[in-house]
Amino acid sequence: MRRNRFLGDILSQLFDRRGLMRGKDDTRDIFALCGALLSSEGEVSGLRLASTVLARYATLDEEEKTAFFRYLNTELEIDAAHIADLANNYAETPTPELFKSLCQAAEPKRQELLRRLNQPVGATAELVAMRVDLLKRLKANPDLARTNIDFVHLLRSWFNRGFLVLQQISWDTPARILDKIVAYEAVHEINDWDDLRRRLYPPDRRCFAFFHPAMPDEPLIFVEVALTETIPGSIDHVLSEEREPLDADQAKVAVFYSISNCQKGLTGISFGNLLIKQVVSELSLECPELESFVTLSPIPGLRRWLETQVDDPDLGGAAQAALDGALPPEDLRAITARYLVQAKRGDGLPKDPVARFHLGNGAEIHDLHAGADTSPKGIAQSAGAMVNYLYNLGQTERNHEAFATEATVTASRAVQALSTAQIQTKTKEPTA
Amino acid sequence: MRRNRFLGDILSQLFDRRGLMRGKDDTRDIFALCGALLSSEGEVSGLRLASTVLARYATLDEEEKTAFFRYLNTELEIDAAHIADLANNYAETPTPELFKSLCQAAEPKRQELLRRLNQPVGATAELVAMRVDLLKRLKANPDLARTNIDFVHLLRSWFNRGFLVLQQISWDTPARILDKIVAYEAVHEINDWDDLRRRLYPPDRRCFAFFHPAMPDEPLIFVEVALTETIPGSIDHVLSEEREPLDADQAKVAVFYSISNCQKGLTGISFGNLLIKQVVSELSLECPELESFVTLSPIPGLRRWLETQVDDPDLGGAAQAALDGALPPEDLRAITARYLVQAKRGDGLPKDPVARFHLGNGAEIHDLHAGADTSPKGIAQSAGAMVNYLYNLGQTERNHEAFATEATVTASRAVQALSTAQIQTKTKEPTA
Amino acid sequence: MRRNRFLGDILSQLFDRRGLMRGKDDTRDIFALCGALLSSEGEVSGLRLASTVLARYATLDEEEKTAFFRYLNTELEIDAAHIADLANNYAETPTPELFKSLCQAAEPKRQELLRRLNQPVGATAELVAMRVDLLKRLKANPDLARTNIDFVHLLRSWFNRGFLVLQQISWDTPARILDKIVAYEAVHEINDWDDLRRRLYPPDRRCFAFFHPAMPDEPLIFVEVALTETIPGSIDHVLSEEREPLDADQAKVAVFYSISNCQKGLTGISFGNLLIKQVVSELSLECPELESFVTLSPIPGLRRWLETQVDDPDLGGAAQAALDGALPPEDLRAITARYLVQAKRGDGLPKDPVARFHLGNGAEIHDLHAGADTSPKGIAQSAGAMVNYLYNLGQTERNHEAFATEATVTASRAVQALSTAQIQTKTKEPTA
Amino acid sequence: MRRNRFLGDILSQLFDRRGLMRGKDDTRDIFALCGALLSSEGEVSGLRLASTVLARYATLDEEEKTAFFRYLNTELEIDAAHIADLANNYAETPTPELFKSLCQAAEPKRQELLRRLNQPVGATAELVAMRVDLLKRLKANPDLARTNIDFVHLLRSWFNRGFLVLQQISWDTPARILDKIVAYEAVHEINDWDDLRRRLYPPDRRCFAFFHPAMPDEPLIFVEVALTETIPGSIDHVLSEEREPLDADQAKVAVFYSISNCQKGLTGISFGNLLIKQVVSELSLECPELESFVTLSPIPGLRRWLETQVDDPDLGGAAQAALDGALPPEDLRAITARYLVQAKRGDGLPKDPVARFHLGNGAEIHDLHAGADTSPKGIAQSAGAMVNYLYNLGQTERNHEAFATEATVTASRAVQALSTAQIQTKTKEPTA
Repeated sequence: MRRNRFLGDILSQLFDRRGLMRGKDDTRDIFALCGALLSSEGEVSGLRLASTVLARYATLDEEEKTAFFRYLNTELEIDAAHIADLANNYAETPTPELFKSLCQAAEPKRQELLRRLNQPVGATAELVAMRVDLLKRLKANPDLARTNIDFVHLLRSWFNRGFLVLQQISWDTPARILDKIVAYEAVHEINDWDDLRRRLYPPDRRCFAFFHPAMPDEPLIFVEVALTETIPGSIDHVLSEEREPLDADQAKVAVFYSISNCQKGLTGISFGNLLIKQVVSELSLECPELESFVTLSPIPGLRRWLETQVDDPDLGGAAQAALDGALPPEDLRAITARYLVQAKRGDGLPKDPVARFHLGNGAEIHDLHAGADTSPKGIAQSAGAMVNYLYNLGQTERNHEAFATEATVTASRAVQALSTAQIQTKTKEPTA
Repeated sequence: MRRNRFLGDILSQLFDRRGLMRGKDDTRDIFALCGALLSSEGEVSGLRLASTVLARYATLDEEEKTAFFRYLNTELEIDAAHIADLANNYAETPTPELFKSLCQAAEPKRQELLRRLNQPVGATAELVAMRVDLLKRLKANPDLARTNIDFVHLLRSWFNRGFLVLQQISWDTPARILDKIVAYEAVHEINDWDDLRRRLYPPDRRCFAFFHPAMPDEPLIFVEVALTETIPGSIDHVLSEEREPLDADQAKVAVFYSISNCQKGLTGISFGNLLIKQVVSELSLECPELESFVTLSPIPGLRRWLETQVDDPDLGGAAQAALDGALPPEDLRAITARYLVQAKRGDGLPKDPVARFHLGNGAEIHDLHAGADTSPKGIAQSAGAMVNYLYNLGQTERNHEAFATEATVTASRAVQALSTAQIQTKTKEPTA
Repeated sequence: MRRNRFLGDILSQLFDRRGLMRGKDDTRDIFALCGALLSSEGEVSGLRLASTVLARYATLDEEEKTAFFRYLNTELEIDAAHIADLANNYAETPTPELFKSLCQAAEPKRQELLRRLNQPVGATAELVAMRVDLLKRLKANPDLARTNIDFVHLLRSWFNRGFLVLQQISWDTPARILDKIVAYEAVHEINDWDDLRRRLYPPDRRCFAFFHPAMPDEPLIFVEVALTETIPGSIDHVLSEEREPLDADQAKVAVFYSISNCQKGLTGISFGNLLIKQVVSELSLECPELESFVTLSPIPGLRRWLETQVDDPDLGGAAQAALDGALPPEDLRAITARYLVQAKRGDGLPKDPVARFHLGNGAEIHDLHAGADTSPKGIAQSAGAMVNYLYNLGQTERNHEAFATEATVTASRAVQALSTAQIQTKTKEPTA
Repeated sequence: MRRNRFLGDILSQLFDRRGLMRGKDDTRDIFALCGALLSSEGEVSGLRLASTVLARYATLDEEEKTAFFRYLNTELEIDAAHIADLANNYAETPTPELFKSLCQAAEPKRQELLRRLNQPVGATAELVAMRVDLLKRLKANPDLARTNIDFVHLLRSWFNRGFLVLQQISWDTPARILDKIVAYEAVHEINDWDDLRRRLYPPDRRCFAFFHPAMPDEPLIFVEVALTETIPGSIDHVLSEEREPLDADQAKVAVFYSISNCQKGLTGISFGNLLIKQVVSELSLECPELESFVTLSPIPGLRRWLETQVDDPDLGGAAQAALDGALPPEDLRAITARYLVQAKRGDGLPKDPVARFHLGNGAEIHDLHAGADTSPKGIAQSAGAMVNYLYNLGQTERNHEAFATEATVTASRAVQALSTAQIQTKTKEPTA
């Protein structure tokens, strides 16, 4: 079975063999093991020690895990006074030797520990899972934020964009991966395999995911795409079981209707912007006829914002009607436009998180649709409304720049007009 | 229909496409481009900017490259006084916010620049090549050592052992990779494809290499292995064109007769220890009959040391005879044993660099052979002698520990005896 | 960037391109096209003509298909008188030229037509499907049996055992193939993907299929295997949702609990014997601890036979009780043993078709179980009983030989004893 | 045997394991073994018996091999009188049963033997090699032509075009396959790996081969292609070591400069026509800018024909001058055109075998070049001249039809004009 193996194969073989390496007989506790891993012993026996630490960690109960993070946070902490000394020395005589000492002192030892833990094959996934445990503890243990900063620092380096691999997810993808797609879909739930088939099998559907070579069984983020003739105004239509599939070469529009982050442990390390752009360029090559790349996105903050507007003398009636599902579609579009274009947080950025993501990527708000997502979640979050963000690769840099420096919200003329339009429904009209 | 695919293929596709992304029209100089990449502009346009910087770098002449490294070293340097302030503050009030500020201040901006440069596919190989340029400048520009420290720091993180992939190199390996093996072989030169075939094709030959997923066309390090019935005492026999190949299942010994590092840009990031151990475990699975794992290694420092011994009252005659090729084999073995076991550097470690590597990995000096490498290089460096280091995985940790903490040189009884044996040849006997 | 490639991929690419080749503008009818394909025109334009014929065939209605098969059967028939002449000549003067003429005359032209139709990639699957259409017509058109004989002749040659490829079907298999497994499972229906997961995912489950390189998306036959500690007596237990999976290296028995032929168009070309033996040898390599290879098989003819025994003075009471589900387990085992060992067809072979298959492969009847398959189908066909056939590769040739030459039914001593045991239940005892 | 295997891998696994199956203890002679394989024993033990026969065959000496072929030819011969009887019966009462009997009687048993021999993996390659042995004996044993006819019949069925797989051969192809390319190149010898690299590595070179899935390590036929700006008139230029490679997207012409059949055992089963057409369609997809697909071909019969013309009153002088290398280029082109267009065999087809091949494929004679192949072989066969055959896929069917039915030689106007042009050199002018 030797020859012609490819990467994935080797990885999986190594995975299988990992068990053998774990030092089942090493009876030291996890703190002693971490100490050994950081010592000279770790240089030659690092692989085995790291495996043992990770195996030991997997057996800890919740309390012991907290103790483990406390250990990282406190015992493997920097010595600030020592750093100050070294920095002062270096400021005086900036030799490379002092520079090195200062760098080493300024880096908490837990970073080196995590790097050494990352040696066994499969370790990366376990460290990502370890961070999930850490994130759960941050609220109750705010000072663990220090350890979290170090996790983020390392994960950002390991999950460098250059290491990510874009893979198409299709009906030729192994079931093992498809199981994950079903589990991780965060926007429009996949109910069963027939539902999944409808999203992957027809000629006018695409799905792409980023993978990291060290976690070949785990998608990091994925996007589901519908190829259509026109920009769709309703997710219900996109996901309809009855629709007639389109030949890919007749499509004019690629609709990104669902983007899901898969790894909680990678919170704060963002792949979405890159994914969208690579998929745009991938699809442009495959289907040169495509003219537009748009999302069909929820507006998750809309309803919450409407609730804050019900007492507004101007908008209150419309807001309440929208909450009640009684606002005429055109008015709902107008009030939604107002929310997306005008409602801002303290830092001047849009209130809506999905809007922040796409506008930050350089997209523009292209169109709005009432009654576009009638699922319970769609009603509960977005009052049934949806939005198209348009990715025009010729414009994204300029849009991004304007958004980054001046918080400018780019929107199509139609949406701009809507956002300042008169809204007819003025008075609170309670539904029966 | 192109090449056999999986990961490597996707990568190469992206490679091909990289050209498209490079901003050929961006006329800013490389310093301005680096500045932009580090600014908010870099967050969304990072991929394009990074590609542009790397393309620009490729066009620099030697002087301009020096200027570029100066820029990294000076303009993207830490502010030591600021670090000292922050460290003092943090010592007083250790909040996570201060911790984060201190971490950021203590990390030179060039690290973030290099991380952002590493976004395009293929960038990792270009940064490794960039470090080769840097290393060449270190002697004339010793303060660039600071930048070198940052390169090492990042490369160590990116080339984390958990990310490396072991691949067997065989006669089924693509010619593209085999070309690299020929080019990088550093111990026993490969003269042509027939020579290469003799090292890969017969059933008693193996070759293994580490690859990094982001550089799928570039081996990092490789080892060539001969499967034999007994521990060999001569490389000439191992590489002989006439020898009769052995069935793999009759082999009792795996001989690591050549280990070559391929990437100068990864100097200081060591893979050899891990490679040997993974290959030992790989071969153990494939050929359960194997009983010993040994090297057949040069002794590159031997001749140099002999030259320092010619005036020694005790060893001088033998040393001179060895240099003259006139020392009887048994005496050459004895003086070589003395060199390997007893000759130490100022720090107490063995003088011989190959000995330091294998002893540091936990191997033991197992046997010595005179007249074992009669190639010009073998005579010039090792006076024709070679050594077997034995990897007994049950002992390596203990050996390593003893070596790391007390510089203990582990040797077989026979070699120990040899190293203290009487050497017959006492008087300088000039050859005719 | 599409699918994971190698052969299958290339094939599928060609599949996609096939459409281009089909001569959409060729307005000749299917008979004229077949004529052209058989003529000299077919030598250079064969690929296009064959594609056109296959495309045209796909548009025929049921009546036109019958006319097409009539054409094959009659127009492309041999000339028997001419054959007789040539044979007589050849008997007199056996020259190679006459031999060649005789061979050509004796082979119906439809064989050459089918061979030429098989040129486009994907054609093999279409010809297999064409045979399904033919088989449906045999009853009403018994003389089409001639054409069927030629189909079988060619398919047997194309599906030569040396061309078949054994593939493990696992949770890493593409969904496209798994869809087929669900559709083709013929013994114990797979209800949904969770059911499928239970048969493929756990460490003690295996599935293997034969594929033909020219039909890479279509399994030909597959077998589902359970690894167990002891020979199981009930399918209900094997398929139980609650069972605890076993580590593969603790298994002592491999149970072939379901074998399904997938292609109706390959009826009469048998792969089962080879599949079982290759899987036995594959599993022996993977799990050297395995001691027994058995089936857990239905007895599909049991109930039908019992119905013929109800008036038997000796067995009638027991037979009726078995049909009524009222026979004690030990008696049901005994009457089942009698059926399997003693009930014969006119040609002296066992009445039970599954018994004929496994005994013909050289297996022995190893054990019998009452109440082993309580599914409606299990009750309706086998009165709830199941049987283990044992594959002892050291014995299969001898068993096969005895079965083939003397119709000897090999059974374990226990089953032999059972087959002649006294059956207690003698009188018809109607259930309440 | 875990996950994600691809076809090639499985095949190689099975290859490795084949040895195990061969019945080393079966002491029957090869004739008895063949008898057993044809009997009922062969149905279940066929795989093992076939392996044993093939292993036994490999040990036969030349005389024993002749005896083996005699056995096939005589012992496994048809019974012509029996065929005549059956044919007469069938002519009277054409029942399917009689049809089947007649088919079986008319097929020599050696066909069934060869089919059963083809069961083990790897057997196909061994049967192809067996035919090489047979072909060598045909001259001395002309009646073995009968057995050869059966070999051809089966090989044609097994190597049906639909089963062939087109693979690009490139610098990413395993060395194992490249070794075969070097060995099989029949037109312009490949001297060493540097020479091979020049034909595969540059961006303006391509190579494609057909493979059969049952012989994955053996190319059947391959073609080497140069992408150029204009139609080249000299192989020396195409193979020049100094030339500057072209970007593929600047190429306007694809030149097929070498086509090599690899398997002597497949003589008479032609793949060249299909290969050229698939490569044309492959390259059209990859490089849409390509405008012409031409060969640069030798004229292997030219010199032999010139020798027959030296006494011709009209052409004699020019013919002799051409043989002496003294004919002016324009005259050499004219006499070559005359040869290709006008020189015919008894059956009316062109004398030149390469011309017959390409004209039979529907190509046209496009242009002629003197001094185009100055290698010793080029001078010795073609008097240094070469020819471009043009593949215009829109014309090949019509050209082929005209060639097949009326032996029409299609040539460009220029070549037609040349073929009737006055040749200046009239008198024999001996070179000094």
